[in-house]
Amino acid sequence: MMKILFQPGEKLIEVTSNSTLLEAASKAGMLIDGSCNGAGTCGKCKVRMIAGKPDELTAAEKKILTVEEVEAGFRLACKTMVKNDMVVEVPLMHGGSNRKKEMNQLPAGFKLDIRLSKRHVKVKRASMKYQKNDLKRLEDALEIKELTIDSQILSQLHPTLQEHKGEVTAVLRNDQLIALEVGDTELDHYGLAFDIGTTTVVGMLWNLNNGELVDVEARTNPQSNFGADVISRIQFTKEGEENLEFMQKKIVQCFNEMIQTFAIKNGFKPEHIYDLTVVGNTTMSHLFEGVDPESLARTPFAPVFCQGVNGTARELGLDVNPLANVYTLPNIAGHVGSDIVAGILATDINQLKGITLAIDIGTNGEVTFAHDGKISVCSTAAGPAFEGASIHHGMRAAKGAIEKVKIKNGQIALEIIDGGEPIGICGSGLIDAVAALLEAGLITKNGRMITKEEAIEAGVKKELADCLIKSDMGMAFILYQDNARAILINQSDIREVQLAKAAMLAGMCTLVKHNGFKLEDVDRVLIAGAFGNYIDKKSAVRIGLLPDIGIDKIFSVGNAAGSGASMALLSEKLRVEAESLASSATHIELSMNPDFQDEYMMAMRF
Amino acid sequence: MMKILFQPGEKLIEVTSNSTLLEAASKAGMLIDGSCNGAGTCGKCKVRMIAGKPDELTAAEKKILTVEEVEAGFRLACKTMVKNDMVVEVPLMHGGSNRKKEMNQLPAGFKLDIRLSKRHVKVKRASMKYQKNDLKRLEDALEIKELTIDSQILSQLHPTLQEHKGEVTAVLRNDQLIALEVGDTELDHYGLAFDIGTTTVVGMLWNLNNGELVDVEARTNPQSNFGADVISRIQFTKEGEENLEFMQKKIVQCFNEMIQTFAIKNGFKPEHIYDLTVVGNTTMSHLFEGVDPESLARTPFAPVFCQGVNGTARELGLDVNPLANVYTLPNIAGHVGSDIVAGILATDINQLKGITLAIDIGTNGEVTFAHDGKISVCSTAAGPAFEGASIHHGMRAAKGAIEKVKIKNGQIALEIIDGGEPIGICGSGLIDAVAALLEAGLITKNGRMITKEEAIEAGVKKELADCLIKSDMGMAFILYQDNARAILINQSDIREVQLAKAAMLAGMCTLVKHNGFKLEDVDRVLIAGAFGNYIDKKSAVRIGLLPDIGIDKIFSVGNAAGSGASMALLSEKLRVEAESLASSATHIELSMNPDFQDEYMMAMRF
Repeated sequence: MMKILFQPGEKLIEVTSNSTLLEAASKAGMLIDGSCNGAGTCGKCKVRMIAGKPDELTAAEKKILTVEEVEAGFRLACKTMVKNDMVVEVPLMHGGSNRKKEMNQLPAGFKLDIRLSKRHVKVKRASMKYQKNDLKRLEDALEIKELTIDSQILSQLHPTLQEHKGEVTAVLRNDQLIALEVGDTELDHYGLAFDIGTTTVVGMLWNLNNGELVDVEARTNPQSNFGADVISRIQFTKEGEENLEFMQKKIVQCFNEMIQTFAIKNGFKPEHIYDLTVVGNTTMSHLFEGVDPESLARTPFAPVFCQGVNGTARELGLDVNPLANVYTLPNIAGHVGSDIVAGILATDINQLKGITLAIDIGTNGEVTFAHDGKISVCSTAAGPAFEGASIHHGMRAAKGAIEKVKIKNGQIALEIIDGGEPIGICGSGLIDAVAALLEAGLITKNGRMITKEEAIEAGVKKELADCLIKSDMGMAFILYQDNARAILINQSDIREVQLAKAAMLAGMCTLVKHNGFKLEDVDRVLIAGAFGNYIDKKSAVRIGLLPDIGIDKIFSVGNAAGSGASMALLSEKLRVEAESLASSATHIELSMNPDFQDEYMMAMRF
Repeated sequence: MMKILFQPGEKLIEVTSNSTLLEAASKAGMLIDGSCNGAGTCGKCKVRMIAGKPDELTAAEKKILTVEEVEAGFRLACKTMVKNDMVVEVPLMHGGSNRKKEMNQLPAGFKLDIRLSKRHVKVKRASMKYQKNDLKRLEDALEIKELTIDSQILSQLHPTLQEHKGEVTAVLRNDQLIALEVGDTELDHYGLAFDIGTTTVVGMLWNLNNGELVDVEARTNPQSNFGADVISRIQFTKEGEENLEFMQKKIVQCFNEMIQTFAIKNGFKPEHIYDLTVVGNTTMSHLFEGVDPESLARTPFAPVFCQGVNGTARELGLDVNPLANVYTLPNIAGHVGSDIVAGILATDINQLKGITLAIDIGTNGEVTFAHDGKISVCSTAAGPAFEGASIHHGMRAAKGAIEKVKIKNGQIALEIIDGGEPIGICGSGLIDAVAALLEAGLITKNGRMITKEEAIEAGVKKELADCLIKSDMGMAFILYQDNARAILINQSDIREVQLAKAAMLAGMCTLVKHNGFKLEDVDRVLIAGAFGNYIDKKSAVRIGLLPDIGIDKIFSVGNAAGSGASMALLSEKLRVEAESLASSATHIELSMNPDFQDEYMMAMRF
């Protein structure tokens, strides 16, 4: 067995010499991006050797790592075999730091409407004159005629009543006793809403006494190590019999780590969490429930289930109160999940007048159309371009990513996340860059990047024209260059952007048309997801990712999925509404839709 | 480690040399009576060494075992340490063989009224035209708008639908899907009712499609090895922290063994059992639910719970369908348990005209009074005399027990269970014997056994007078004698019988009086329990165990607790009725009742 110490965090793990560093990292709970699922082609799993001698570079690594990176000790974790004891540094991921501020407030007039309550009472002792059983005396103290009680709680009833002279706090779900605690614990009354993103898991901790947000935590989805997108994760679960359970355990473990952190940071016991809601896309919902998602990867993309599921924390292996209810919101279709349903709840678009489009930009881009309470949805395979995955120098919105690009008077101005030297470009930077290149005339309407010669001929400033070079991937534009590296946008990247934005826009057009309207009839476009907070709306309209209906009609609504999950946590009425929304929404399957194919081809143009 | 082979059954177990044979037997699952909880005083745990050399006899064994028994290889299992490999024969217990015939039929007009159903359907495959999720397609096939589904079943949904072209059998509890099985399994639809007696556990297997009894099994309650009566078992659970869980596991294991036997004998899978009901006295209910019964052993005898409890088989560790509901019927008070409630259900005494008394004779004798639908109950500490436990030559109703005694013309006629030589006397034999001795004038009204001289003087036949001898325990009557042994009834035994019958009769008198009646107003007496089938009613009236209201008004109702448990299994309506019966019945605590003390003293006389 070899010892591997991962930094930062000083996680020590012992593995056999047959393991890759990626496997070791996964085992140690270190989160490493594994977009290509260990193929050694995406280059996202770079780690730095601090100590320990790895094997010679593999062919895959030679292809991807620069000499400078190799000299600095970088290797691909998926290709590096553990040969001896090692100390390995894992580059930090960005995100999650300021999440609480980013959380949308609950809508004005939102009312706490929960079935849970905590009640501190003193239960009288039995005597020959008051010769009632423990449960009956508790019922008397609570003034409830008949409690429903689980056999697990029953076994704690007697010792709990004995401990503090009968002073107890009952945790009730309507008339069901879900916990009985010694003394007065009325103040410790928490609920959790989880949004399982394919990439990021966000947990929101709520005080169930007053409906106030207590804390927010975010983690990279640990399933990422086994595929960046839903299709590669479904693929992974098919590769081994135990993989489905493994994937479920990964997400449960992630929840449990967040729960632990919440409890420590906020000074309460995990058992004081009594209610949970979960949203995610349909694949994430299936994996969380331990349900095989294989049918989501092939036509007709039928999920195993759509309706909301109630389970107990005990069954799911969550380290909160064992009888806490865990409500997973309903999905609409194979690629329109409960995160979209939650988004509808949060934005209340079924109540808005006029026509609203809500979009969630991602590998699967979901579009929601609402008109006078009628909802239609579709999902479109936008691809991972805006998540940086299919882009040559693309990366997630993490430290070192170029997040804003402006070109003015021949000068390129970049903004880097957390400052410093850029190491890649993320989605919002990419949109800016393509928009700026279009404005500067370096990309044609068809998406072709012109040559330096063409640029000079067209009167483009020399500083910019000089940035156009020929590369293996066709023409490329140098966004940034120093002695160590260059960050380029190449022709292939432009094509990826075209495919992605065309899919999103065609999805919107098809839904609008299906409902008998035109794009110009749309009254507002809502962009869900943290991504919406960062992208430049003008740039997005310029490249045709968003329809040109006027910047003032485009709104970023933040993590609408998380807000919706929270609202369902805090309101029974909204859970009923979620079920009814999900079952009444019209799902348009785009792969069957001839309109979509036409729109898609048209939307490819800039 | 030493090897111990137990016969019959050839159970092999390995134990350390620090174990007693009783511990080894318990570990091997052999059922040995342990009335005195290992004190070495009751002599019930005799076993015979077939091979292997035990230590010298202990003082306790010398006191109890006869020389002949020692020569035949008998030892007390609780006092014999394992010293080397041994082969040990455990005397067989009686009972359970013909149980099915003994079961009461369900009352005429009884109607099956269950929420469970099994439905075989073919679920259509999803297609682009029928693009619904698995669950929705199942709902379509079942013509149910919305199924409630457990997350554990959800994970089996997809593979189950794939396996047999969508042919499945859904097991439904109202609209809740509790199992989904491949193919057509409609015929395999079973439920189980358990009656946990302190001594004997009876399981009744029912076909839930037609409400017919399929099979009955009985086992000695494996908790018996840790105390014969409820008080010594409560004592045992207090002796070690893990003992409560241990006792629960014992009874669950006993259930599981019976379930296994049922399944093998009747050719179905244990997973095809979907519903269970359980009755027992309050201590048995508490132990089964894993609830500490300690408060039942001290005033005010308040139980932890009375109301019925619903749990799942999965939670309780029962090897049937994991989502099978396990309903434990409600208790009435600390020593009036759900077995009594079940008895009321089965005998329907709240519907009978006039005044009915129902009695359950045991260590705790429970008495139920019913008049025009009004029910009162009490429990009285009758002691274990009729179970043979406090009687010098007493034994349970097992092979070799004297079960009937007649004295006619100076001749003693005995009936032995399963024939052969008698080895002790059981409850029904004891009642007969005392009645016969009273008739013969050998016992006075005060319960004194006269001397041989007094007998001769009173003109008793010589053959009988010769049976009166002086013993360590006062006068004794020789019931049986051969070269090897004598079976005696001594003065102390008579006193035990007096205490037991007085408690029962005083309980009846007190209840009747409490309700404003006299014993002669009683229209009928029902005797519950298998015991009722065996006792001679005339003898029981003669000794004053039953009131003298005429033999034609005394009825044996068999295992009413088991019948009631079965009826609750087969009828939802009766479950509701059980709860209402249990909470509306008036419980009279006899230890507080001055009438009872008076009645008790009076009832001591024969």
